[in-house]
Amino acid sequence: MVTGYQPTQRTTPTRYRERARYDRETVHRILDEALICHLGYLGNGRPVVLPTTHVRVGETLYLHGSTGSGPVLAAGAAPAGLPVCVTVTLVDGLVLARSAMHHSVNFRSVVVLGAARVVDDAAEKLRALVGLLDHIAPGRAADCRAPNPRELAATGVLALDLVEVSAKVRSGGPVDDPDDCALPHWAGVVPLSVTAGPPVPAGDLDPRTPVPPYLSGRSA
Amino acid sequence: MVTGYQPTQRTTPTRYRERARYDRETVHRILDEALICHLGYLGNGRPVVLPTTHVRVGETLYLHGSTGSGPVLAAGAAPAGLPVCVTVTLVDGLVLARSAMHHSVNFRSVVVLGAARVVDDAAEKLRALVGLLDHIAPGRAADCRAPNPRELAATGVLALDLVEVSAKVRSGGPVDDPDDCALPHWAGVVPLSVTAGPPVPAGDLDPRTPVPPYLSGRSA
Repeated sequence: MVTGYQPTQRTTPTRYRERARYDRETVHRILDEALICHLGYLGNGRPVVLPTTHVRVGETLYLHGSTGSGPVLAAGAAPAGLPVCVTVTLVDGLVLARSAMHHSVNFRSVVVLGAARVVDDAAEKLRALVGLLDHIAPGRAADCRAPNPRELAATGVLALDLVEVSAKVRSGGPVDDPDDCALPHWAGVVPLSVTAGPPVPAGDLDPRTPVPPYLSGRSA
Repeated sequence: MVTGYQPTQRTTPTRYRERARYDRETVHRILDEALICHLGYLGNGRPVVLPTTHVRVGETLYLHGSTGSGPVLAAGAAPAGLPVCVTVTLVDGLVLARSAMHHSVNFRSVVVLGAARVVDDAAEKLRALVGLLDHIAPGRAADCRAPNPRELAATGVLALDLVEVSAKVRSGGPVDDPDDCALPHWAGVVPLSVTAGPPVPAGDLDPRTPVPPYLSGRSA
């Protein structure tokens, strides 16, 4: 049975409600496709937004940090967790309409609200780090040196349960007012996508080292 | 004379300080290249992060909204402006090191802190909207129907002065611990970039309408 996230007042948009999505499949796909997220929290009572990497493991979102970073310190000092807003946005295209007003961007975004906790348990932290590595290159976690205890201690991971969650999706062409459709301006969509170039080996890499299959498939 | 933004405590990173940049050229380039930003503000005392489009005009950042959107309503109700954090992030590559610990992402980001005001002046709002259009497709503002008074009234624009600003840049290959360099794992960078596909005309576009030159140059 497919269930969705329960909309709340905060996850119900004030505009373009028809673009909101609460089904898990849409939310999961966007979170899984995005390479980075933007983490919002309060630092000294003021909003702070920082980019970081993330991975979804089931219904938990893990965020990468260091033990000395602002949000990890703040979450560590918040017994009930740190109130956060994590937003992920994929830009799929530029939408050009005949009128200035109806220009838009095709996008897929997810907003996750909740209280983030610091992952203290060593096993959970290791699982999260494996997930973070495999999120950027599936299979990479098994093909590098695993973190040692000192490195694990220096890495901060935040966890956020997927409970108060919404997605927003805008797709398709421009929607012009009928009166504007006869105007001579070009209208349509410029599709955008993130593409990978050929992998560039590190300067000190033994040139006989083959490019791993999980990377060669990425190139555009 | 080239001057930079004055670092403050809030724009001085706690980690990787060598990645911080305060020169206007670096900041401007990142803001100008990015198609979207993430706007952080407080909604009912909790952090909210929303994606939107932006444009830099000189030392002012304009953000697109609608008169009914959360941040525009909140800014309109804040006489001294709405405290915000606007963050822009460009992802340039995946950095694969021999050790899990030294994996990273090549990126360029800008964080702008300050108080956002609602643009009430009709002339300033029109200039901002022209900028927002030309930001996604240079030349487009002159090649579409300009907003009428009703449309202008329905559009909300926020302005934020570039004063408390910092950029952060990570580039180049992985930096592995010397002991790890003999490990057999591939190490290097997978370059990433945003590329545009061929423009897709709207379903109701007269097929004789040529693709404008400001779009044909975008395609990969």
